[in-house]
This record gives sequence, structure tokens and C-alpha cells, in this order.
Amino acid sequence: MSKSTERTELYAVADFCLIPMGTGEPSVGEYIAECHKVLERSGLPFEMHGYGTNLEGPWDQVCKVIGDCHAAVHGQGAPRIATDIRIGTRTDKEIAAGTGNDGKLKRVQEILARETTRA
Amino acid sequence: MSKSTERTELYAVADFCLIPMGTGEPSVGEYIAECHKVLERSGLPFEMHGYGTNLEGPWDQVCKVIGDCHAAVHGQGAPRIATDIRIGTRTDKEIAAGTGNDGKLKRVQEILARETTRA
Amino acid sequence: MSKSTERTELYAVADFCLIPMGTGEPSVGEYIAECHKVLERSGLPFEMHGYGTNLEGPWDQVCKVIGDCHAAVHGQGAPRIATDIRIGTRTDKEIAAGTGNDGKLKRVQEILARETTRA
Amino acid sequence: MSKSTERTELYAVADFCLIPMGTGEPSVGEYIAECHKVLERSGLPFEMHGYGTNLEGPWDQVCKVIGDCHAAVHGQGAPRIATDIRIGTRTDKEIAAGTGNDGKLKRVQEILARETTRA
Repeated sequence: MSKSTERTELYAVADFCLIPMGTGEPSVGEYIAECHKVLERSGLPFEMHGYGTNLEGPWDQVCKVIGDCHAAVHGQGAPRIATDIRIGTRTDKEIAAGTGNDGKLKRVQEILARETTRA
Repeated sequence: MSKSTERTELYAVADFCLIPMGTGEPSVGEYIAECHKVLERSGLPFEMHGYGTNLEGPWDQVCKVIGDCHAAVHGQGAPRIATDIRIGTRTDKEIAAGTGNDGKLKRVQEILARETTRA
Repeated sequence: MSKSTERTELYAVADFCLIPMGTGEPSVGEYIAECHKVLERSGLPFEMHGYGTNLEGPWDQVCKVIGDCHAAVHGQGAPRIATDIRIGTRTDKEIAAGTGNDGKLKRVQEILARETTRA
Repeated sequence: MSKSTERTELYAVADFCLIPMGTGEPSVGEYIAECHKVLERSGLPFEMHGYGTNLEGPWDQVCKVIGDCHAAVHGQGAPRIATDIRIGTRTDKEIAAGTGNDGKLKRVQEILARETTRA
């Protein structure tokens, strides 16, 4: 159907949750803090929440940064890591850099606010 | 290996991302707003972010509420729904109700703050 | 927009990947074998693959069994567990019990076979 | 602690579930069949199951191929796509190319077989 898309043009809006395994202790805050530093160095917009981190940017860069987090957490001593990534792309509208995850949240908040006003 | 645990005693710290399918339009804000209302009625602590919703409570209640969101979104007209759930439990420490996701985030922030102070 | 659906009527087609944390060793086969036994006792259709387990049944039963897996793995000594669940429901067609995941796979295989024949 | 790891050296054992959105119809088999072709062209080992596809290879290649699936599915007309990826790496042992997901499954089956023999 229609025009083709290249992977390298795709803007990815994502969220990931990295889980160090085989670490001998159930707490993983130190490893996640290490990821925070990797994310900061990447320059990509990100925001941590209670069960993962919102992250967005060009597809390849988003994947690269999550891989860099794995490398850093292995470097901290974790022998195994399992990560869950949610990643989305769309071709129906342009997403201004850095507004993807935020925009989705705001839209839901606007709908809820509109309904409250109406009631 | 020690004492056994019952599912019904497990406190679940979770995050879920619900995706309506076959809706004819790519935007899903209206459906997610509907989930927000279901979550509010549940009384469980929750917080939406850009790519999902933090949620926590007893295992069975958390699962029940997410199922109620599916029912509500089907009621809004979505013929199919695919949800990704991240759900965690732990037996090494007691989690005070409503502090699970928040506590994880705060611990990472404390580690980062401590390191900044030290530097 | 139409008729409502109840959560308790929903048939869930799911897949989950359970990750024991803080176990001191990176291998988790023993814990997953324990889950296998819990799944067998449940009577629900399931099938393990390389990165998780297909599972289906009524919504509440699917969630209950995964919770029972958490309880069993905690009983084996894992102090913390993080699970990723993919769970889907649909109201556009009836799914005969036990055919949900298999049916999806078969449909893709049929499409591919049809195209090969045509070529 | 110890030696560092580079992202570019990481071997990733993964599983992904791609969900086309806004397609107007709940069935997605045609899109998933398209992904199958992209995966075949990639040369990476993969295997579809009822709720996703096992896939493995060097980190960057695995991510690239999933991105190529997004591009192909957009090319088929889907305006929006949401994918869930589970991706794991380990430094405690070498994984022979193509044996990561299979090896995990076999290990669980061996444990179960051993226990049955013992009983």
C-alpha cells in the first residue's frame, strides 16, 4: 500500500525496564543509577518512572543506548541482564523530537480534563 | 529454600501498557482515558507516564483491574486489545501499600544524588 | 460503542517470561522448571519457547496461574521476581478454548504458504 | 567491578511481538507474514510462536532487523506500530551463534526429564 519507509528514518518512542540477574542481592538501584548516567551522556530525552524509563529518538540511537546500558551494567558486575522494551513508531504524523512520550500523556490528560469540565 | 508463599499474599508492583487494535485510527487517547477512570474507581495507587501506567496492590486485585480496563476498552468499541504487563513481587522485604513503584524511583534518585554530592 | 463486556467473560491469550532476581547465579532453569509444574497442575493450555511461555484461558485463571508461579519460585528461594506478560483479548470472534496462540501462528503460516504457492 | 564490555560485542537473545495499530481490522496475520520475510532476509536465527518471535544475534543486528520489520509493516499500510521486545545478554558464558533461545528451552526440558526419571 503506498510509499515505503526506511528504518533509518523512523523516530522511536520507547520505554524500557532493565533487570540485572544473578547479582546475589535483590536490590538493583545501583545498576539503574548507572543506566541513568549512560542515558544522560546519550543526549536523548528520557525520564525514569517506577517501573522503567521513557526514552525516545531515532530508532538506531534508541537501540544503541539501551545496548550501552547493558554494557555498563555488565561492567558493574551483573553477569546476565534481561530487558523489556516497548517501542513504537508512527507514520501518520510527525513527532517533534522529544515530545513523543510527553505528548501521549498530555493527550490523555486533556481528554480527562475536557470531560470533567463538561460534567 | 525455606517457607512457602501464597499467591494471595503477594503484593504486586506493576506497570502496564494497553494497546487497542483494529480501531481504524492510530490515536488511542480516548481509550486510555477510559482506563484512567477504571483505575480511579479501583482505589489502587496508579500513575500514568508516557508509555504505560504504574500500578500496585495485591496480585489478584492488580490483575483484576487490568482485566476491567480491557472490558471497558472493548465496551468503547475496540474489537481487540494487546497489553504488556510488567509485574514484580518480592519476599525479602515488606512494601508499604502504595510505595512500591515510588520507592524504586526514589532509591535510584538517592544514589545519584549521593554520588553528585561526593564528586 | 455497543454492548458491554465483563472481565469475567474475557478469554485471554497470553505469553509470560518470569525472571528470578537476586539468586546469586545467572542460570534460572531450575526455577522455570518449577513453573512448568505449576502450569501443568493448572490444566490450562501452555507451551514453553525460548523466551517465555504461551498460556491461555479465562482472564482470571491466566493471572492466577502466573501468580502461582511467582509463589512457587519464591518458595524455591528467589527473593524477587520480575515478570513480563503479554496478554490479549478480542470480542470480534469466539476463540475455541486452547486454540488462541496456536491459531495465530497457523494463520501466519497459511498466509506464507499461500504466497509461496502463488509465486 | 572487573573488565568492561562493549555494546558492539554483545550477543543478544531476544523475543519480540509487533502490533500494528489503526489498521481498521483486528486481524494482523498479513503484517506478521511480512515480518517473517524480513526476518528470513536478515539471516539471523528466528522462530515464530503464538505470541511473538524468538530472534538472536549481535545486539545491533537484532535491533536493526526489528526496525526493518517496523518499516515493512508501515509500508504495508499500518500507520502506527507498538512492539514489545524482550532482550537478554550475558557475560558469564559464551553462547554459540543460534543456540541462545533453544539452549534455554532445552535446559528446562532436561531438568524436567531428570526429575521424572528420578521419581
